[in-house]
Amino acid sequence: MSQEIVFTDRVRIYDTDAQGIVHYAGYYRFFTDAAEGFMHDTLGISYPLLDEKTWFVVVESEAKYYKSAKLGDELSVILKPKLLSEKVLRFDFEIFVRGTAICAGHITQVSINKQYWKSTPMPQSIQKKIKLLSESKNPQIKLKRRAQQGKRR
Amino acid sequence: MSQEIVFTDRVRIYDTDAQGIVHYAGYYRFFTDAAEGFMHDTLGISYPLLDEKTWFVVVESEAKYYKSAKLGDELSVILKPKLLSEKVLRFDFEIFVRGTAICAGHITQVSINKQYWKSTPMPQSIQKKIKLLSESKNPQIKLKRRAQQGKRR
Amino acid sequence: MSQEIVFTDRVRIYDTDAQGIVHYAGYYRFFTDAAEGFMHDTLGISYPLLDEKTWFVVVESEAKYYKSAKLGDELSVILKPKLLSEKVLRFDFEIFVRGTAICAGHITQVSINKQYWKSTPMPQSIQKKIKLLSESKNPQIKLKRRAQQGKRR
Amino acid sequence: MSQEIVFTDRVRIYDTDAQGIVHYAGYYRFFTDAAEGFMHDTLGISYPLLDEKTWFVVVESEAKYYKSAKLGDELSVILKPKLLSEKVLRFDFEIFVRGTAICAGHITQVSINKQYWKSTPMPQSIQKKIKLLSESKNPQIKLKRRAQQGKRR
Repeated sequence: MSQEIVFTDRVRIYDTDAQGIVHYAGYYRFFTDAAEGFMHDTLGISYPLLDEKTWFVVVESEAKYYKSAKLGDELSVILKPKLLSEKVLRFDFEIFVRGTAICAGHITQVSINKQYWKSTPMPQSIQKKIKLLSESKNPQIKLKRRAQQGKRR
Repeated sequence: MSQEIVFTDRVRIYDTDAQGIVHYAGYYRFFTDAAEGFMHDTLGISYPLLDEKTWFVVVESEAKYYKSAKLGDELSVILKPKLLSEKVLRFDFEIFVRGTAICAGHITQVSINKQYWKSTPMPQSIQKKIKLLSESKNPQIKLKRRAQQGKRR
Repeated sequence: MSQEIVFTDRVRIYDTDAQGIVHYAGYYRFFTDAAEGFMHDTLGISYPLLDEKTWFVVVESEAKYYKSAKLGDELSVILKPKLLSEKVLRFDFEIFVRGTAICAGHITQVSINKQYWKSTPMPQSIQKKIKLLSESKNPQIKLKRRAQQGKRR
Repeated sequence: MSQEIVFTDRVRIYDTDAQGIVHYAGYYRFFTDAAEGFMHDTLGISYPLLDEKTWFVVVESEAKYYKSAKLGDELSVILKPKLLSEKVLRFDFEIFVRGTAICAGHITQVSINKQYWKSTPMPQSIQKKIKLLSESKNPQIKLKRRAQQGKRR
């Protein structure tokens, strides 16, 4: 069973377009924010530049839109990580507004050696942590990512 | 056989990210530009707000990335329109850089009555023109969209 | 003396460009997020669509860049509101990374009646609250904006 | 007298926001496109990465908004280059819709050695060409930038 991790976000004016709703490509910002939040907060790794040598490069993205999100809507973004191989990590996403699923999609990314721009196994520590999460009995982790930033000058 | 329509574009600095390549969500800008160019130049219709009553709303988007596009790359964006029903229009895209396919994907959009936010058949004129294009023997139209803007103050 | 309000943010991959730094126009996202956070969290008002009748429309934006922000940098964004008239509100911003000022700028916005698209005094409650903040002796409010989002399905 | 160079552009759906107009930060896309078009088409230089060693980094941006641009509006973007020193180049912009000025602003950029991230004189060829343009008697060059892209697979 795959672990669910929940992030919250809010629709900003720059996410919207002249139809008065979030622009279709704007949902990928919510996906990216959740992916970065998961890597940063849960795994303690920067994203998508993992370290000096290793980068994640997106090879696939996809979204289905069931309902429209509007300016000011509070979003719950659920992320499920899936290790497809030692080189490929997929994140599935679902976005909810007031309990209703409005969007689902995924991004798939390959670990590359940035110097040679060739695929390479991602660091062992990431693989291990994601496997642990996948086997976890705990059905849902709720992360208040934003609250954990905290540090300031 | 579906008609191919070709647009050209160039990768701008704001399309790229710190990986030195086009950001994965940035390709949707190229898709949108080609969609808008097709509707505007070939069909003579504004996009995605078709007229006072009818809007196109995106219900699905998807992209696969084979190679990376870089700053300054000249892109050929090929669009194939497919009328899935009288209410649903799909655009398939392929992007080429110097003859090599680097990205393929699609967006699917539903025609809605904007007042009631309910699906509605798209204007007959659009359906007819797209059908004509689909039956055309001419395998490829090359549009220099940018060149046709022309008008200025 | 004008009140300072501090927000935190983090540089995401989509904020950066092929120079490896935040794209110059990307800083306006940080400005907008702080503006929206101030209106939402401190004043309890949605932004920039204040209510059914009244919208804020930006008439001026400006930024000076002293140093570059990079992927993953934790930002402190300081906002100072200034009521220029009953119709015009200016926000001044300063952005810090690890104690160093890297960017300063402002946006100025006019309150309009959205139906007639004409300037109109902003709601009394907003004017009053901003005046109170301006006269406050408390030199700095630190808001953990993100932490206050909280609500989820 | 400074030379005027004119580009055309069109407002796309992703430039707009829920106010039904171009988002204030969206105008910087039009500025960037004109800057890139000027460097590429008039000077024959890629932008903002000029060559292997030299990059332009933006140190200042500013815009004033007189009227709102809407989806589908055809824009005339006028660019005036000003060489402030051998290291600093300023572009002033004016945007017109149907003969009416709707926006004016500028970006200022410094030439840097990308390896050391220190300011450095920009290539002599650029300085010379911009000086020539500045001394030109010809008051206006109209560039159909888009039309000149042309090349495709």
